[in-house]
Amino acid sequence: MEDDAEVVVQNKQVIFKDYIINNGSLKASNMAVTCDATIRLELPNNEDGLILTKNLYLSCDPYMKNRMLESMQGKFNDSFQFALGSPVRGFGVAKVLDSSHSKFTKGDLIWGPINWEEYSLIKDTQALIKIHYTDDVPLSYYTGILGMTGLTAYVGFYDICSPKKGDTVFVSAASGAIGQLVGQFAKLHGCYVVGSAGSDEKVDLLMNKFGFDEAFNYNKEEDLSATLKRYFPNGIDIYFENVGGKMLDGVLPNMRLHGRIAACGMISQSNLDKPEGINNLVFLIYKRIRMEGFQVSDYFHSYPKFTEMILPLIKEGKITYVEDIVEGLENAPSALVGLFTGNNIGKQVVVISHE
Amino acid sequence: MEDDAEVVVQNKQVIFKDYIINNGSLKASNMAVTCDATIRLELPNNEDGLILTKNLYLSCDPYMKNRMLESMQGKFNDSFQFALGSPVRGFGVAKVLDSSHSKFTKGDLIWGPINWEEYSLIKDTQALIKIHYTDDVPLSYYTGILGMTGLTAYVGFYDICSPKKGDTVFVSAASGAIGQLVGQFAKLHGCYVVGSAGSDEKVDLLMNKFGFDEAFNYNKEEDLSATLKRYFPNGIDIYFENVGGKMLDGVLPNMRLHGRIAACGMISQSNLDKPEGINNLVFLIYKRIRMEGFQVSDYFHSYPKFTEMILPLIKEGKITYVEDIVEGLENAPSALVGLFTGNNIGKQVVVISHE
Repeated sequence: MEDDAEVVVQNKQVIFKDYIINNGSLKASNMAVTCDATIRLELPNNEDGLILTKNLYLSCDPYMKNRMLESMQGKFNDSFQFALGSPVRGFGVAKVLDSSHSKFTKGDLIWGPINWEEYSLIKDTQALIKIHYTDDVPLSYYTGILGMTGLTAYVGFYDICSPKKGDTVFVSAASGAIGQLVGQFAKLHGCYVVGSAGSDEKVDLLMNKFGFDEAFNYNKEEDLSATLKRYFPNGIDIYFENVGGKMLDGVLPNMRLHGRIAACGMISQSNLDKPEGINNLVFLIYKRIRMEGFQVSDYFHSYPKFTEMILPLIKEGKITYVEDIVEGLENAPSALVGLFTGNNIGKQVVVISHE
Repeated sequence: MEDDAEVVVQNKQVIFKDYIINNGSLKASNMAVTCDATIRLELPNNEDGLILTKNLYLSCDPYMKNRMLESMQGKFNDSFQFALGSPVRGFGVAKVLDSSHSKFTKGDLIWGPINWEEYSLIKDTQALIKIHYTDDVPLSYYTGILGMTGLTAYVGFYDICSPKKGDTVFVSAASGAIGQLVGQFAKLHGCYVVGSAGSDEKVDLLMNKFGFDEAFNYNKEEDLSATLKRYFPNGIDIYFENVGGKMLDGVLPNMRLHGRIAACGMISQSNLDKPEGINNLVFLIYKRIRMEGFQVSDYFHSYPKFTEMILPLIKEGKITYVEDIVEGLENAPSALVGLFTGNNIGKQVVVISHE
């Protein structure tokens, strides 16, 4: 019993507390931060294939809201399924404290699906990837640019958008985790790139940090279609869609013949009771446009090819990456909520512990 | 002068009289049938490269309305440009009465862009195709199944929809010129095919003539999404989109993962001042759907391959084709208008003369 006391510790968690009803807003109160749980920091005897982790960095991603919608319950069949009363779950980085799994050793760093809690005992290790860590890249990058965020931008731009040198590219939510990378990929590919964002500070970032050719604050524009006409007098070849709604309706008449739209997200619609209607879809026909929705989970096989491309670019300073880092698991719910109100500048990361 | 009198004849025409303002309805009064013009049924001397035609069959197609919208003037750059006071223009079949063009001889039958008039003197013959006529296929088929309509169905289904045996296919406006062919192509390809149409008579045609697996009258359905759920309990792999609006909104949540939508037309939106908003586009992302607009003009190079496939199918009775034939050029305006109110059953053809 005395031994036990030494290895059993408090395990702070973010619990999924209440469903979001009728596609309403995500609120911090849909989650609860609790210190009620404890965890034994030792592996159970005689059971193989387990790992015990200390969780370090969490990724906040818009798709996580869907896991909390009452209307979407039971519609997912993956490792991110949320259950009421259980911890929220997302991509993160963790350190292996102990392992009875042949693939992992104590001290390993991993990324993959992680519960929003300080420590986890993990049985389903299939989706976890070992990090070949070198000091020259921040470990938190594996929640983003070196994780799902980066891979999403990579397959969305290169696989879905079929870019050609000289193409005109528009990126919405361009200072966000994915948008900032898409814009930079497009510039490296020899495209003309314009981004939109929701504040002057973000627009400044697009122009002066990420190297977009042009950028605008959509909150200051009355008529998005006219704005886009100004930036793209000859039309848009590629639209990387992160927001939906009025922005998409403004983009459609400005697309060029045979344009491509990669539909990655529609975050402007997330907090509406009913999504806004898109009135200009007939331009898909007039302009012979391909619009394609995609999800990164279909492209995990591209991860090795992606890291081979991105790691040198990061190390050589050819790709810039901005994180919005919040300290403390207790601040994770409000950080996640902030994604939907445009609070974050760059990739929203929550630090549970730096090591 | 006496000679002249013998070869100068009245030339009945359908003239483009008034623009359609603000995307309103097409009315017969946007056109005028006139007998004011005359034409000399002799080629002018000393000018090569001309043909004189007697026009036989005209195709009525929804895209023709766009040529009469004031808002779309100057936005087309093709052989179908309409000018106020000039004849309406569309695809048709004609007989060559005389030719000073090396490619054509008196007596040839041709199809391609034809003015809505009894006789034409044609200088721009580039888009005209000579018909290798055999008696076993009706000549009027070159306005439809053996013309642009057939090619549209062919490239839309095979090139855009990427069909696989066993796929579930939904076709809207399924008894229309294109829909009836898409449904039959899908059946020949081993797919499960459901069609929608706007009357019980059309539904009967789909089931009993075109061999669709199921069909329904959308006017009798309250909730199109629920209807589609009934016919496709496991979802839709391929949607061939001819109507847009509420039908598209009902389809989107019923699509399967990695579904494909070929956007060929959105005729339900044609007579609305403002198109209906599409609210369910986010399903493009949830279900990773590719939605692609296309126009047959990008696929003219596929015409020889297409006829190689379709002619034997017609002759062997493996493809059924229904035409809605109206006699008389004076009835062409109302036939064209009828496309937008669902009057036609099958391909709308106007006969100027049978030979």
